[in-house]
Amino acid sequence: MGIIVQKFGGTSVGSIERIQHVANRVIEEAQKGNEVVVVVSAMGKTTDELVNLANQISNHPSKREMDMLLSTGEQVSIALLAMALHEKGYKAVSLTGWQAGIMTEEMHGNARIMNMDTTRIHRHLDEGAIVIVAGFQGVTETGEITTLGRGGSDTTAVALAAALKADKCDIYTDVTGVFTTDPRYVKTARKIKEISYDEMLELANLGAGVLHPRAVEFAKNYEVPLEVRSSMENERGTMVKEEVSMEQHLIVRGIAFEDQVTRVTVDGIENSLYTLPTIFTALANRGINVDIIIQSAANSETTSVSFSIRTEDLQETLQVLQSLKGANVQYETGLAKVSIVGSGMISNPGVAAQMFEALANQGIEIKMVSTSEIKISTVIDEKYMVSAVEALHEAFELAEETVALRS
Amino acid sequence: MGIIVQKFGGTSVGSIERIQHVANRVIEEAQKGNEVVVVVSAMGKTTDELVNLANQISNHPSKREMDMLLSTGEQVSIALLAMALHEKGYKAVSLTGWQAGIMTEEMHGNARIMNMDTTRIHRHLDEGAIVIVAGFQGVTETGEITTLGRGGSDTTAVALAAALKADKCDIYTDVTGVFTTDPRYVKTARKIKEISYDEMLELANLGAGVLHPRAVEFAKNYEVPLEVRSSMENERGTMVKEEVSMEQHLIVRGIAFEDQVTRVTVDGIENSLYTLPTIFTALANRGINVDIIIQSAANSETTSVSFSIRTEDLQETLQVLQSLKGANVQYETGLAKVSIVGSGMISNPGVAAQMFEALANQGIEIKMVSTSEIKISTVIDEKYMVSAVEALHEAFELAEETVALRS
Repeated sequence: MGIIVQKFGGTSVGSIERIQHVANRVIEEAQKGNEVVVVVSAMGKTTDELVNLANQISNHPSKREMDMLLSTGEQVSIALLAMALHEKGYKAVSLTGWQAGIMTEEMHGNARIMNMDTTRIHRHLDEGAIVIVAGFQGVTETGEITTLGRGGSDTTAVALAAALKADKCDIYTDVTGVFTTDPRYVKTARKIKEISYDEMLELANLGAGVLHPRAVEFAKNYEVPLEVRSSMENERGTMVKEEVSMEQHLIVRGIAFEDQVTRVTVDGIENSLYTLPTIFTALANRGINVDIIIQSAANSETTSVSFSIRTEDLQETLQVLQSLKGANVQYETGLAKVSIVGSGMISNPGVAAQMFEALANQGIEIKMVSTSEIKISTVIDEKYMVSAVEALHEAFELAEETVALRS
Repeated sequence: MGIIVQKFGGTSVGSIERIQHVANRVIEEAQKGNEVVVVVSAMGKTTDELVNLANQISNHPSKREMDMLLSTGEQVSIALLAMALHEKGYKAVSLTGWQAGIMTEEMHGNARIMNMDTTRIHRHLDEGAIVIVAGFQGVTETGEITTLGRGGSDTTAVALAAALKADKCDIYTDVTGVFTTDPRYVKTARKIKEISYDEMLELANLGAGVLHPRAVEFAKNYEVPLEVRSSMENERGTMVKEEVSMEQHLIVRGIAFEDQVTRVTVDGIENSLYTLPTIFTALANRGINVDIIIQSAANSETTSVSFSIRTEDLQETLQVLQSLKGANVQYETGLAKVSIVGSGMISNPGVAAQMFEALANQGIEIKMVSTSEIKISTVIDEKYMVSAVEALHEAFELAEETVALRS
């Protein structure tokens, strides 16, 4: 008897049959008497196909035009899902990002949601319709179509759930929940029943790929209970919420990893208060996500800084750095980041040492390290990525089923 | 040094190579110092593919959701064309229908343009950009995405040319101009150099397929000079304008034809002043185009009416007619319409007789007839369509090159 937001990813709507299956999932919630808002991604490989079209024309297509292009993918899905619901006898209406009132900042390719105007969604819900919203996209104040970057449909769903004060936001995906690490790489990976926003945020930020970090951030800020679950199977997924009651004796809850990492080192730059802000503001303005940053002063006049980026952002990063006077820029591609996450770390010293030892035992060199209260990240050679994850999964006993401390 | 509107159809933007070719055509105009606004359709078979997706879900998909679905096709083309222009060093910006201020009535699938707000287009032109507008689509006052029906991109182009007070509107297509009849069917078909709006309107209405009738209507009302020309070849096309200086001694200027025509006959309906308005208003509200209408009173109490529609509208037409009390509805599919057009007919009696005789000589039965001042339409069996056109093309000597009366 409340509002439920459901999000279905690209694989879940990857074919006509799957869209019809999604329609059934939506109807299940509607039949319970809930008002349902559904967020969908583009069908299967649609986004890749569109990117491929653009790349046939340009190696560096305008981000504005990429947003124009890519936002069509979700628009196709929402229309088809609305038709599937009509066909099953349900009232449904699809809305693009701009129609749904998803207002973003003036940034293409990776915009953040600034504001939600849910007037129109409420009007359609009041009329008894299931509302289907295009994920991943929004509109700026000046009427420019924007996209929210990787995994942006999760963000759309959670932001909608927050704005609509939904009772729950179900993220339907092609896996059955959040795992201790990626089960495609590590066979002993185990599904986590409950996880806190902070832990999920670290896992999401670290490339676990199940949920977009901005989505988790939104969920945390507005206390939206999330469930990550499979669109194919009916089993319970992973609850993401504030208080996690179980598995508290686990120091490490999950291991995240991503490949395609590049380390960039800039030295010979002027050692002034404004040097670093200048570099990183310029990168941020281009929408480049800088991850780990390590600075070391070489002498009093010049300084040196290393940072990691996604390899796909390398060309643009180099362009930005070209403008730095006297800078000597070097980079190393072919790297990966492997991280361990768990709120138990705060009260357990020696976790970092245990991690470094496990990697050393495999002969893996650590090239960069970064830590937070609940995670430790290492940058290593890409070719050791999977063996590093396996070694850590075993070292921290993540494969073992644990009993909840309280239910 | 004025504003030029160029429109490129689906075949012209059917592949990446063709989009790059279109970019060159656009640049040619820009290099002359003109401000250029480009209207493009969806790439090649995109619309068909989208319709096919919808039909896999529903035999009668909601028209609103079809508009949502189909409007993505043009959005892909405009983004790609903008990228192609950037790649060639030109400033360009793409706009969807709603971004370009193309306001339509509240009707899905076949909306008419009600108003144009060109503020945003002017702003981009003032910034020195080539503006690329998605054809075929608009937006209602309540923010619903609409499409303009068949050939709607022509309408977009001409409406833009009118609103922007453009010097000219070039309709680039896959043929080199307007022909006396379809050259794919009749080998002796000849390209017409100049044609009046009224003649073009009749040809367009009659399914000549080169230009959408609404586009011609707009062009006539706002006196926008049109040129229909090939996007592949560089030869001059057909000028459509108010005064046509040549070929005036030709009684018949062209022959149009279309298949997939269905005749619907309703009899036994109450003979009241309101019967016909009721039927045809109901059909119009569903966006069904009724073409030839013939009424005959059977007796004082009941009446009978026959009309022709496109076969694709048959199911919906039958639904509308079901609500008529006591009506006996019959229909005949598999028909075609063949029409002759020419402003010389007004002052030449006996043209109809000449037409009927030419058809009779081929043993072709005429099932319906309709006339206007400058055209005569006949409905015949679909299997005789091409032979009827050939016979008429010969009877009215359309294959023969004529000398302009004045140049």
